[in-house]
Amino acid sequence: MQLARVLGEVVSTMKDEHLTGLKLLVVQPIAASGESTGRALVALDSVGAGVGEHVFFVRGREAAFPFYPAEPPTDATIVGIVDHWTTE
Amino acid sequence: MQLARVLGEVVSTMKDEHLTGLKLLVVQPIAASGESTGRALVALDSVGAGVGEHVFFVRGREAAFPFYPAEPPTDATIVGIVDHWTTE
Amino acid sequence: MQLARVLGEVVSTMKDEHLTGLKLLVVQPIAASGESTGRALVALDSVGAGVGEHVFFVRGREAAFPFYPAEPPTDATIVGIVDHWTTE
Amino acid sequence: MQLARVLGEVVSTMKDEHLTGLKLLVVQPIAASGESTGRALVALDSVGAGVGEHVFFVRGREAAFPFYPAEPPTDATIVGIVDHWTTE
Amino acid sequence: MQLARVLGEVVSTMKDEHLTGLKLLVVQPIAASGESTGRALVALDSVGAGVGEHVFFVRGREAAFPFYPAEPPTDATIVGIVDHWTTE
Repeated sequence: MQLARVLGEVVSTMKDEHLTGLKLLVVQPIAASGESTGRALVALDSVGAGVGEHVFFVRGREAAFPFYPAEPPTDATIVGIVDHWTTE
Repeated sequence: MQLARVLGEVVSTMKDEHLTGLKLLVVQPIAASGESTGRALVALDSVGAGVGEHVFFVRGREAAFPFYPAEPPTDATIVGIVDHWTTE
Repeated sequence: MQLARVLGEVVSTMKDEHLTGLKLLVVQPIAASGESTGRALVALDSVGAGVGEHVFFVRGREAAFPFYPAEPPTDATIVGIVDHWTTE
Repeated sequence: MQLARVLGEVVSTMKDEHLTGLKLLVVQPIAASGESTGRALVALDSVGAGVGEHVFFVRGREAAFPFYPAEPPTDATIVGIVDHWTTE
Repeated sequence: MQLARVLGEVVSTMKDEHLTGLKLLVVQPIAASGESTGRALVALDSVGAGVGEHVFFVRGREAAFPFYPAEPPTDATIVGIVDHWTTE
């Protein structure tokens, strides 16, 4: 999973029907230091995350699991809101 | 999913038979700022996207879902046309 | 699999229910030389790894295997603690 | 999928038995401009591609689809020969 | 698949039980020129590869195929020893 910050939202009228009603968020991966790193991507939300919050998201086949038995065509889904994290 | 802009189209006569009749688009990933980032790739289209439009595409196993029950050998498929997106 | 060092832990109250009770660790990939390389990520732990230890983790669909028959939405799971490794 | 140019071939005597008789090609990813970008990889061929040709290949689980019902352990397979591509 | 050179071995006492008895090798990806490129990773061996040899490995879900019906939690497995490769 990847730590990230929620930057905003994507508005899309023409989209796959299995994405209807799901929130499409723009998320910025962050390093353990909290700094942005790498490019932003679009993730579905499964935990009620909002703009400005720190979250972690899962990539790949598992990104659809939180919506089971629905199978939206997603490769990135937010699966947790981060309270805080520790580093050595 | 990744934000991208549609750059053009790939013309291919010799290809996997399960790709017949599907549109092969060249897409350029973009950052949250709208700037190009990283290398272009080839994606299938499932939503009627055209050259110059902003879209988002899904990678991996899920890229075949929009064509179900067909299973084209695709690892990247456009699943939405972007109206606009917000960032903080 | 990727060699990594465990940097710390992620605390998350709001998360996917299938992650409940699982340890979320911040791991830093390392090169064969032992130096940090690339960005840190969040991995589940399946072998009792602790902060400061060297481990290796598996990505993708296989990351859920150690929790079978449970299927937590994970794309990175620590599957071994490293005693040492050799290079030419 | 990724645009690429076929650079050459890999000769391997000791290999997984499910790769026997399949062509292992060295492919160099290319950008939309036609320039090489990123590192070369090894891909199976499913369309009769030859050295010097422009192709596109698919990664991941789908890379085995063109060989169905066989399941060679491949994560990259050429699924089309490119006649040409357009960019804006 | 990726060309690589075998650098060494990982010794791990505490690991997922499905990895017991399997060889964990440190592999360094190489470019078509033979030079090292990118970071080393840990791969299982399915073909009897040894330190110093050139090999190619497969990533992702397919990495478990050579061990069928066993399903070790692996995302990278060596599936061939390279005799030589050609480039234009």
